[in-house]
Amino acid sequence: MIKTDILIIGAGPTGLFTVFEAGLLKLKTHLIDALPQPGGQCSEIYPKKPIYDIPGFPEILAGQLVDNLMEQIKPFNPGFTLGERAETIEKLEDDTFLVTTNKGTQHNAPVVAIAGGLGSFEPRKPPIPNITDFEDKGVAYIIRDPEVYRDKRVVIAGGGDSALDWTIFLADVASEVTLVHRRNEFRGALDSVERVAELSKLGKVNLITEAEVKELKGDDHVTAVGIKHKTKGDIHLDTDYFIPLFGLSPKLGPIGNWGLEIEKNAIKVDNSYDYQTNIPGIYAIGDVNTYKGKLKLILSGFHEAAIMCQSAYQRIFPDKKYVMKYTTVGGVEGFDGTKKEAKKEVVKAII
Amino acid sequence: MIKTDILIIGAGPTGLFTVFEAGLLKLKTHLIDALPQPGGQCSEIYPKKPIYDIPGFPEILAGQLVDNLMEQIKPFNPGFTLGERAETIEKLEDDTFLVTTNKGTQHNAPVVAIAGGLGSFEPRKPPIPNITDFEDKGVAYIIRDPEVYRDKRVVIAGGGDSALDWTIFLADVASEVTLVHRRNEFRGALDSVERVAELSKLGKVNLITEAEVKELKGDDHVTAVGIKHKTKGDIHLDTDYFIPLFGLSPKLGPIGNWGLEIEKNAIKVDNSYDYQTNIPGIYAIGDVNTYKGKLKLILSGFHEAAIMCQSAYQRIFPDKKYVMKYTTVGGVEGFDGTKKEAKKEVVKAII
Ligand SMILES: Cc1cc2nc3c(=O)[nH]c(=O)nc-3n(C[C@H](O)[C@H](O)[C@H](O)COP(=O)(O)OP(=O)(O)OC[C@H]3O[C@@H](n4cnc5c(N)ncnc54)[C@H](O)[C@@H]3O)c2cc1C
Ligand SMILES: Cc1cc2nc3c(=O)[nH]c(=O)nc-3n(C[C@H](O)[C@H](O)[C@H](O)COP(=O)(O)OP(=O)(O)OC[C@H]3O[C@@H](n4cnc5c(N)ncnc54)[C@H](O)[C@@H]3O)c2cc1C
Repeated sequence: MIKTDILIIGAGPTGLFTVFEAGLLKLKTHLIDALPQPGGQCSEIYPKKPIYDIPGFPEILAGQLVDNLMEQIKPFNPGFTLGERAETIEKLEDDTFLVTTNKGTQHNAPVVAIAGGLGSFEPRKPPIPNITDFEDKGVAYIIRDPEVYRDKRVVIAGGGDSALDWTIFLADVASEVTLVHRRNEFRGALDSVERVAELSKLGKVNLITEAEVKELKGDDHVTAVGIKHKTKGDIHLDTDYFIPLFGLSPKLGPIGNWGLEIEKNAIKVDNSYDYQTNIPGIYAIGDVNTYKGKLKLILSGFHEAAIMCQSAYQRIFPDKKYVMKYTTVGGVEGFDGTKKEAKKEVVKAII
Repeated sequence: MIKTDILIIGAGPTGLFTVFEAGLLKLKTHLIDALPQPGGQCSEIYPKKPIYDIPGFPEILAGQLVDNLMEQIKPFNPGFTLGERAETIEKLEDDTFLVTTNKGTQHNAPVVAIAGGLGSFEPRKPPIPNITDFEDKGVAYIIRDPEVYRDKRVVIAGGGDSALDWTIFLADVASEVTLVHRRNEFRGALDSVERVAELSKLGKVNLITEAEVKELKGDDHVTAVGIKHKTKGDIHLDTDYFIPLFGLSPKLGPIGNWGLEIEKNAIKVDNSYDYQTNIPGIYAIGDVNTYKGKLKLILSGFHEAAIMCQSAYQRIFPDKKYVMKYTTVGGVEGFDGTKKEAKKEVVKAII
């Protein structure tokens, strides 16, 4: 069982910055995210696009913001449970919470901060009748570890950046890569589209367009896909893996059944004080919460995280009084033994 | 009379970022600050010190943060009234506000955003009986335009960074620079202390320590100072200017008499919605406001500015509905004709 001070559900920008604010208060944190990587929407939806309204950055790529946040929180050594969805919550007798994921991992903490954004990212699945039977048996919607595909045959489906990028990447890893797409046109970064065209010409990628995977074959594991081509009819293709990359869409999901007050698909919180939900000890911050005037902006998640951590501190240490110190004045003392601090002024005689 | 949509009092980080958030809503802004430069506490108190809790910056110098914010708001061309203190406010018949500074400059706007931090920075004055008679007549507490001192004789008093830095700077500008300090020891950045010692050895700066300026002489303008030395007794020194640099300390000042609800030397606001004060149309954001759980942090001022601008928009355009667009999606259209936007994805046929 993983134990921590503040269990953070969602490793988007809000969840990540919570690690920092908690760390300043010497509180330990652990993050759960359904995605295999941190960064939430910034990493999953638009890592290569610029954001213009992060204060102090006239322009920053979403992926760079996530990298910076990871660097900023490093001294506080957060734990991560990635690629798992927080499924159930239970209040224990000692007033702490037990959160269990869809894979059975258990987490225990006196405070839970839900920073779940628009929800847990779930794959859009193609309409193939028996696809769920083959999940984790040759069918994957997210690529967690590309090494799994080394020297294997892979069929990817999709026409966007994910499908293009993974096709390019796996061309060097898999023994055979086929990209299947409904149309002739791909929608993605210019580089990626051109690179796939090149790989196809070089014979390194097998491109089948105006076609859709309609059938999965195999017993315990995928062995082949059945493809329906617009003009050429049915195609049978032997393969070890089928990876449909039609994007991930966020769903509030299980959190919706945790007894929290829900409004407009988001969690109601007390924004006049500490962003706590109707269940004491459970907070909701960032895109996942709602209140009068709420803006779903990254900069709001940062503020909410800072305020929330102060209240969490009071819950965890009801008898202590925390006196805030500016980071410039007090420095940042990591749990990893590092210490950052401003150079002190000198007092020096001249004469 | 200066007219604008949102009149911002205080050009600290909060006031500066308000320009950006207002600009996204196509609202014009104008800033008033008592200091001669933008940046508030960051510029005045600790420009060369690192801040560690600006989200996305593992470390940034306070002065750099201000530079970045100035760059970020540039497309929105804000107006500035610097070196003047907002003194009075009056509500006009058309429901707009008239704000007048201590120098008589008038500003008119339907919305006033007070981002006054800990208050207007006012100089600490040395106890010389007739010093106020000579203000702007040879006595200055802030150096606005160093060119004023070209080829003049200048006496600076103080032992901190400001006194050291300006002594170094003016050594190349003025015909004669004297630095007077109560003790032998100076408190400041190591470089600066050493540089002043060097300039003194080279005869480029006249250093008088263990001494205090006790008297000002002249009729219409300063012509000399009387200095009391610990061991050498009284010293008479002819000079054109006397610049005591004993630091600036913030005072809530005139804003305290504007009929706003004040608590703990700060302005009470409605943090459950839009950071409006008890006077509709006047908002208070950043360090200057107070509410349950308030943190005097830069990141909080940013959030409050974003929320406040949405409410200001409703006040200015009661019949319009603003639909927020992410900057990544909608780009940033400056009032100066510039446009920043993300590269569009291409849709491109491969075959
Ligand atoms: C195209 C686009 C452009 C944008 N541009 C801007 C912009 O310019 N400026 C701006 O401020 N904002 C912008 N945004 C919005 C911004 O990305 C969000 O405000 C921000 O990502 C919210 O951060 P968050 O950490 O609250 O949530 P998210 O980034 O959504 O992260 C939440 C994370 O929680 C995880 N999660 C949820 N439920 C569970 C669960 N039960 N178990 C495990 N994990 C779970 C999700 O998988 C996700 O990774 C943009 C968004 C998009 C899509
Ligand atoms: C040494 C030090 C270290 C700090 N470290 C950190 C840190 O690590 N992290 C952090 O988040 N914060 C830190 N802070 C606090 C941070 O600087 C403030 O939160 C921030 O400056 C507040 O911004 P603001 O724009 O609200 O107000 P301010 O920066 O105070 O600016 C307000 C401006 O309004 C002007 N003003 C006020 N009244 C009037 C008037 N009537 N007319 C004209 N002008 C007026 C003032 O002259 C001033 O320039 C630190 C502060 C200090 C002093």
